[in-house]
Amino acid sequence: MSAPDPPSKKTRVLLIGPHPVRNRDLLASKLDDGFALETWVPDDGKAALTDRLRAADAAICMRWDRDMPPAPKLRLLQLPGAGFDKIDFGALPGNCDVCNVFEHETGIAEYVLAAMLELSIGLRRIDASFRLGNWTGSTTRADPPHGELSGKTVGLVGYGHIGQAVAARAKAFDTRLIAVTRSPRDDAGDLAWIGTMDRLPDLLAEADFVVLACVLAPNTRHLINAETLALMKPIACLINVARGEVVDEDALYGALKDRTIAGAAVDVWYRYPTTDEPNIRPGRNPFHALDNIIMTPHLSGNTDQLWERRFTAIADNLKRFRDGRNLRNAVEWLVFE
Amino acid sequence: MSAPDPPSKKTRVLLIGPHPVRNRDLLASKLDDGFALETWVPDDGKAALTDRLRAADAAICMRWDRDMPPAPKLRLLQLPGAGFDKIDFGALPGNCDVCNVFEHETGIAEYVLAAMLELSIGLRRIDASFRLGNWTGSTTRADPPHGELSGKTVGLVGYGHIGQAVAARAKAFDTRLIAVTRSPRDDAGDLAWIGTMDRLPDLLAEADFVVLACVLAPNTRHLINAETLALMKPIACLINVARGEVVDEDALYGALKDRTIAGAAVDVWYRYPTTDEPNIRPGRNPFHALDNIIMTPHLSGNTDQLWERRFTAIADNLKRFRDGRNLRNAVEWLVFE
Repeated sequence: MSAPDPPSKKTRVLLIGPHPVRNRDLLASKLDDGFALETWVPDDGKAALTDRLRAADAAICMRWDRDMPPAPKLRLLQLPGAGFDKIDFGALPGNCDVCNVFEHETGIAEYVLAAMLELSIGLRRIDASFRLGNWTGSTTRADPPHGELSGKTVGLVGYGHIGQAVAARAKAFDTRLIAVTRSPRDDAGDLAWIGTMDRLPDLLAEADFVVLACVLAPNTRHLINAETLALMKPIACLINVARGEVVDEDALYGALKDRTIAGAAVDVWYRYPTTDEPNIRPGRNPFHALDNIIMTPHLSGNTDQLWERRFTAIADNLKRFRDGRNLRNAVEWLVFE
Repeated sequence: MSAPDPPSKKTRVLLIGPHPVRNRDLLASKLDDGFALETWVPDDGKAALTDRLRAADAAICMRWDRDMPPAPKLRLLQLPGAGFDKIDFGALPGNCDVCNVFEHETGIAEYVLAAMLELSIGLRRIDASFRLGNWTGSTTRADPPHGELSGKTVGLVGYGHIGQAVAARAKAFDTRLIAVTRSPRDDAGDLAWIGTMDRLPDLLAEADFVVLACVLAPNTRHLINAETLALMKPIACLINVARGEVVDEDALYGALKDRTIAGAAVDVWYRYPTTDEPNIRPGRNPFHALDNIIMTPHLSGNTDQLWERRFTAIADNLKRFRDGRNLRNAVEWLVFE
């Protein structure tokens, strides 16, 4: 029998959940041999999670609550995404840093522009009709034309990574850009105006497209409700790439059904699949029966380039953690206070 | 009985066909009372056309061939669009200027970007599937992600009004832009490179999206054929907003059916509706049975803002004509020689 291995000096990183585990080799390829990577998926069982968390210096996962086993050595919780609404900060060891990662703003901004163009032009409807032989809308006839994005006002609720990425692309379409944000900004830059959240009513009244790209927090929950939807123009469309709960579900469904707003593109929802209900409807209301909504299953940022960019950033942060350097994208609790 | 009216000194303008006739009042509102506007649609009969053309100083229409009645006084043929492939220049009076009008590049560029985003993301397919309860692609699962436009190479065949409008928008998506044009250009500007038509093979080999935005002329007819399609990458998509005949129909259908290219968006076709066949299929081949094409009935530029912009430009040109000033957008015959 050989002697037991000496205690490892390696930085132990536990990858939890589908995206981290699926990208284990990608992450390993970007780290040196000073790291020991372990993985955990639900099929491994709770006992394995307890064992592996006990030894972990860092964890990569998207959710943390009071049901998690103790993690006495944990000093870094690295989220593999941006949203930290599933993290119960009080359930973490007191000296554990939490960092998030972005890189999804490219895919999300492309989704938002795709949605604005589709809501203006209607390729989906036109293609389906033309396949049946219908030439309506053709420039060779005097049919009613479709709309342009050019000249429209785009209202951004939130002007962080995503809002700015949307603005950079929308500007090239000669749109007018306005925004509201959590914290006051001095410089409107390319925007016609930027204000704090108290100017939301002005934004809703002016915008042809209202793009929700804010964090979910107590003060943004149901920010869009029956009262604020009523401030939107009847020709305006709502695009939600933030979180479902930023919009009151019943109010949104009612506004679309009654066409008090023209349309919506919604990527973030009220109900998500579970093991028991893998094909769950994304809300209580039958959004799937509406013809003035583009609905997608929370994938706007989930592109083929995303994970390469994200795990490059995560590997960099893990090396900073190991070497005692400043971490990137440390999440500030204070935003909620 | 009153005496006959004195001979009119007004500039007589004949509006022929659906778009000019539909926009008669819009045009009149932009002219002074030095103009007399007449209209003609096929229901008025050939004799009326003969009468009205005999007196016309200018005509606004999109087609002219040897079957047109004589137009002895005609000195300006103002097209209400850009394409002059339906004009038989030899059938016009020798001293008649021909001018075209643009303003459609905004709508067409928006269509091209909408098509590139749809071919990258696939909102149409995702929306249809999600309405049935399918969460595939969701960022909450480890599903295969969709594509990004960012980082892709966009190859522009033609770099006139439309090509430049596409480039301005595509640049904001961090694409790499390359172009081939009829005439050599000194300055590539925002493009990675720009060359003459002999560099088409390079463009086809490099591009993830090939955008056809050239005029139809003898040297561009069937520019894209079985041989040139074979130069495209299997992941590449073709977007045609030029004219159907720039692409060999059978070769395009074959490439899409056999998936030697990934997809296409086609707005311009091989067959157009007639009175007898208002719902004609747009080609000999069953493009409507393919799932890797976005097909639309020649409407990319036909937006709600187009005609206001175009008839503003046409009114300006008519005043220049009446006042003997330089005309805008006079079409050069020489391009075909």
